[in-house]
Amino acid sequence: MKKLINDPQEVVDESVAGFGLAHADLVSINSDPLFVTRKERPAKPKVGLVSGGGSGHEPLHAGFVGLGMLDAAVPGPVFTSPTPDAIIPATQAADSGAGVVHIVKNYTGDVLNFETAAEMAAAEGIEIRTVLVNDDVAVEDSLYTAGRRGVAGTVLVEKIAGAAAERGDDLDAVAAVGQRVNDNVRTMGVALSACTVPHAGVPSFELADDEIEIGIGIHGEPGRHKIAMEPADGITDRLLEPILAELKLAAGDKVLLFVNGMGGTPLSELYIVYRHAVQVVEATGATVERNLVGNYITALEMQGCSISVLKLDAEMIELWDAPVNTPALRWGV
Amino acid sequence: MKKLINDPQEVVDESVAGFGLAHADLVSINSDPLFVTRKERPAKPKVGLVSGGGSGHEPLHAGFVGLGMLDAAVPGPVFTSPTPDAIIPATQAADSGAGVVHIVKNYTGDVLNFETAAEMAAAEGIEIRTVLVNDDVAVEDSLYTAGRRGVAGTVLVEKIAGAAAERGDDLDAVAAVGQRVNDNVRTMGVALSACTVPHAGVPSFELADDEIEIGIGIHGEPGRHKIAMEPADGITDRLLEPILAELKLAAGDKVLLFVNGMGGTPLSELYIVYRHAVQVVEATGATVERNLVGNYITALEMQGCSISVLKLDAEMIELWDAPVNTPALRWGV
Repeated sequence: MKKLINDPQEVVDESVAGFGLAHADLVSINSDPLFVTRKERPAKPKVGLVSGGGSGHEPLHAGFVGLGMLDAAVPGPVFTSPTPDAIIPATQAADSGAGVVHIVKNYTGDVLNFETAAEMAAAEGIEIRTVLVNDDVAVEDSLYTAGRRGVAGTVLVEKIAGAAAERGDDLDAVAAVGQRVNDNVRTMGVALSACTVPHAGVPSFELADDEIEIGIGIHGEPGRHKIAMEPADGITDRLLEPILAELKLAAGDKVLLFVNGMGGTPLSELYIVYRHAVQVVEATGATVERNLVGNYITALEMQGCSISVLKLDAEMIELWDAPVNTPALRWGV
Repeated sequence: MKKLINDPQEVVDESVAGFGLAHADLVSINSDPLFVTRKERPAKPKVGLVSGGGSGHEPLHAGFVGLGMLDAAVPGPVFTSPTPDAIIPATQAADSGAGVVHIVKNYTGDVLNFETAAEMAAAEGIEIRTVLVNDDVAVEDSLYTAGRRGVAGTVLVEKIAGAAAERGDDLDAVAAVGQRVNDNVRTMGVALSACTVPHAGVPSFELADDEIEIGIGIHGEPGRHKIAMEPADGITDRLLEPILAELKLAAGDKVLLFVNGMGGTPLSELYIVYRHAVQVVEATGATVERNLVGNYITALEMQGCSISVLKLDAEMIELWDAPVNTPALRWGV
């Protein structure tokens, strides 16, 4: 295992510390328990947004803390859910009197721990709503989940619900628009290589030299099937097929197309995938109105990508375009 | 070789086409010869900035085309210089009557081709200045260069000179501040893994399972020496030692610290390097006033990073902070 790390047990703490130093203008770090909050408290009460989950998916979630997106993020150990003792104070920190929305990827540990934290926070008088993200069309149940996994759609939920909170929507409205994003986004991923969890020291799974895995999860958990390597356009077709089968796009529909890198794939390759994905999506009659291409929810150094398609409505477009000022996503400010 | 590509000969054209689709609000693509320009022409004459070089280093250079940075970028084949027949029309497109600055990384092919293009453009009445970037402290000469290589410092030259052009500085002033950035920035890189040029199909060099290469170039060309894998803090010390030996920082100095990923290294590891690099730099008495952490000048899917330290003056800080609106770097707008 070759990684730019020190003690494998210190990876998350040291990485978040460096992140905090690099973005001290935007975020504050609470080191024990570990969570990340926005530097500036809101001038008047607004709905707080909190997300979190296992580390190893950077920039998700801490990279999305800031104006127009999250108020707090809770990084767990690598690929392991954070515990309620960190989620509760992060929720308290994010609360400014208008309630808090938890954005939770559908993994069993995350669901349980956020549920417990929500109960405890509610007992202390903070109103909580939860948006459960489950956009992965690859498999119904996996090693980590009951039901569909939450993957790249999470970034879109966080951006759009975050903008709703920032403009002053109330708790139910923020949760509702986050839920609407989840209901309208579908994602599917592919791995060209495995990834290695630092404290494990060996790759999470095996792929032969000419083999790729279609439908992979963001922890390297199994997808739909392994196939022989093929050209990018063919892989793009395979990823989009189940997404488009569910979304049933038609002429006049507007979508956001998101090609997300898994961490070890060059940006140039993501643009090759994006190019063909636009052709395939627009062949349905829909138009790609907005896009995002880059490494936003990763699986350590895994090579591969995911494609997400979000069916947009006018309000989602307005909220997508709204200003955002976070370490990993920034425009309009 | 597993890559998200189609025909290896079409990698650059298809990637730039996808890039153009994704960022149609910011850039325009000229496909034959291949170059990228800003979507909006300046309202009044301003100094034009043009850079370019072999592809495989994305987002450099095309990702930095836009307000406050480059006016045009010329992507060559992977790791191969673009030719004058592309550089000349890119220079013409970037010219709005106030002259053009070429920002050229010090590789033999780039130097020759930009020189030829500058002569031809000058013959057509466009005033040209050239800033040659040679910030790599690893080796004096390499496979690709006479003298030091131009690496991550290029991003800082493009940002700061671009801001000077945007505020209306004249041709000599823009070239001068670009030159001053180059004179005050030093960079050193490390590779944990090799990279594979698509049309070659095999890795550019070999590293054993427990071996890393200190002083690597952005094409995988040899560095100073191969050593056994060691913790991130030790690697960070090794990268900073020759940089700090040259910059001779003292109490009161202000620097920009740039930790750049080579393409295949997770962001979380770059923050681990950044964390310790701040400690080492600030032990000189200098303070880290600005920073950049991420994948900005890459070597395909290589794992590793480079560290750059730029000694700042007040004007450089002002120009660094100025608005920028490009696909890969965006703030203040």
